[in-house]
Amino acid sequence: MNYDKILLAHGSGGRMMRELIEGRFLPALTGGYASLGMEDSAVMDFPGGRIALTTDSYVVNPIFFPGGNIGDLAVNGTVNDLAMSGAVPLYLTTGFIVEEGMPIDQLEEIIRSMKAAADKAGVSIVAGDTKVVDRGKADRLFINTAGVGVVPEGVNISAGGIRPGDCLILSGTLGDHGMAVMSKRAGLGFGSDLVTDSAPLNRLVQEMLAVCPEMHALRDPTRGGLASTLNEFADASKVGILINEAALPVRDSVKGACELLGLDPLYVANEGKLVAAVPRDKADAVLSAMKANEYGKGACIIGEAVADPPGKVLIKTLIGGTRILDMLAGELLPRIC
Amino acid sequence: MNYDKILLAHGSGGRMMRELIEGRFLPALTGGYASLGMEDSAVMDFPGGRIALTTDSYVVNPIFFPGGNIGDLAVNGTVNDLAMSGAVPLYLTTGFIVEEGMPIDQLEEIIRSMKAAADKAGVSIVAGDTKVVDRGKADRLFINTAGVGVVPEGVNISAGGIRPGDCLILSGTLGDHGMAVMSKRAGLGFGSDLVTDSAPLNRLVQEMLAVCPEMHALRDPTRGGLASTLNEFADASKVGILINEAALPVRDSVKGACELLGLDPLYVANEGKLVAAVPRDKADAVLSAMKANEYGKGACIIGEAVADPPGKVLIKTLIGGTRILDMLAGELLPRIC
Repeated sequence: MNYDKILLAHGSGGRMMRELIEGRFLPALTGGYASLGMEDSAVMDFPGGRIALTTDSYVVNPIFFPGGNIGDLAVNGTVNDLAMSGAVPLYLTTGFIVEEGMPIDQLEEIIRSMKAAADKAGVSIVAGDTKVVDRGKADRLFINTAGVGVVPEGVNISAGGIRPGDCLILSGTLGDHGMAVMSKRAGLGFGSDLVTDSAPLNRLVQEMLAVCPEMHALRDPTRGGLASTLNEFADASKVGILINEAALPVRDSVKGACELLGLDPLYVANEGKLVAAVPRDKADAVLSAMKANEYGKGACIIGEAVADPPGKVLIKTLIGGTRILDMLAGELLPRIC
Repeated sequence: MNYDKILLAHGSGGRMMRELIEGRFLPALTGGYASLGMEDSAVMDFPGGRIALTTDSYVVNPIFFPGGNIGDLAVNGTVNDLAMSGAVPLYLTTGFIVEEGMPIDQLEEIIRSMKAAADKAGVSIVAGDTKVVDRGKADRLFINTAGVGVVPEGVNISAGGIRPGDCLILSGTLGDHGMAVMSKRAGLGFGSDLVTDSAPLNRLVQEMLAVCPEMHALRDPTRGGLASTLNEFADASKVGILINEAALPVRDSVKGACELLGLDPLYVANEGKLVAAVPRDKADAVLSAMKANEYGKGACIIGEAVADPPGKVLIKTLIGGTRILDMLAGELLPRIC
């Protein structure tokens, strides 16, 4: 049978669910990778050693936004969470919670985007689940992705591993993802270069680790933005972090949109950027490696770790003062990822 | 600060989210197991070999029901999906999608249930994520769990592995979970023994594999019930499956509730039962092993695999006839798990 909208029966565990998954989802997802079958678990080879595991749910509103959608966002986000622990991402799972009435062709488009993003990152989506809830009990589509990777020997990356003297390197411009979603949500035409930066950073990380295996900390500043990530670093490592505002790259379009909406790009979500803490004597090598990767072209040193004050982030402002850059307290941009 | 309800700001990535997770969620989850920290991924040791991966989202309504809640249901469900591939479950991840306004003490109670269920199954919840959506855009709480296990050498269990002559063994009564949820949802007092059968089946499976490592197929008949599972078996293995209705165990209270609501227990979800296809000469040994486990006390042989008709499930009815037992077509019980 053919349907163009999701019905409750598509979540039943019965024939209609099988038709939907086998007929429309699986053909879009399988290919060169481990096959997604109808078993309860996917079984794959795995090298011994250390495994990295992560999960994220995506509730972004709207589900389609400039430069991407909830599907490639979910794949890139989970790939990046694995990469930030120094892991080589291998396998992903995906769980869909679909609101009754969602157009099936939109769901298929999102699944195709997930497959394309997985291919680009070099990972396989090996297991999935679909639940349907009644109209008005969800918001079209929520996606959960979980991911598994292998951590190479000798790699020990942790938010708590930063030492005074470390250089802090940012991979590119701030606030692109958050402002792309906001512009779409608010129906504001801020300009055509306001697109998400959603991207897989796993190869960038591998190239950074190749020149600096002793990397101290890595994180992708998503919800809460760079300011929240730096505060997590300072808190976990018991160091101070001193940032130079003049060094922070922000696109003019993002700057303009932020001013209009009263937002600070330091707190706006990124989905294709990372911030690294590296020993000072390796900073140049890491920077060169980053600039050679398509997702690290805009890499720059934004500051350093200092002994005092421990647990605080300070920012040297454009006009020459220094102020504390606090963690985001409440909510700036709900449902940005 | 203290709050008793979830606010949008609890999903911000900022200070309120940290307070909620570090102050209230993590203390309930950590203990004897790998610590759930604030890193992007959890990193653990993993033996080499074959890895099993699975994911499930839980949207059950209501979230508290007789004998359990959405939290232990999610843990048991993912443990069981791993177990059904013969894997020893090791690590779980959990993603929460919370509706703004949800009472935090309910969320904590659910998280405590997850920890208790994980302890009982012998698995660790090692990574988590929390998203908050605005009121009216979700239904209190959805949980996604993903799980990782290791598949012992020599174990090859698959829905497609059944051969004519195999015995089909069911571990206990049918329909308990589905009717427990329905009775609560409908506000019907069907009697106090109508409780979910939600339980971790991983040790039961290990004990079955100890006496029958060549086990052909295993599955927990959740959504769609036993009828759907048997149809999946018949379809994947290209065998016929012949079931004896008189052998199917159903509690009187479940039978009564099903009659009242016009439901067939063969299509109602179970969350602590499994059906196994085993070579005939191992059936007695497997049955004995099952009866010795608390979750297999009610184990019984319900039928056999036959060469003809391939892909079909036949049921010998109580009055002596034989009819085709089809897969569930539409939706019987939405949001039962």
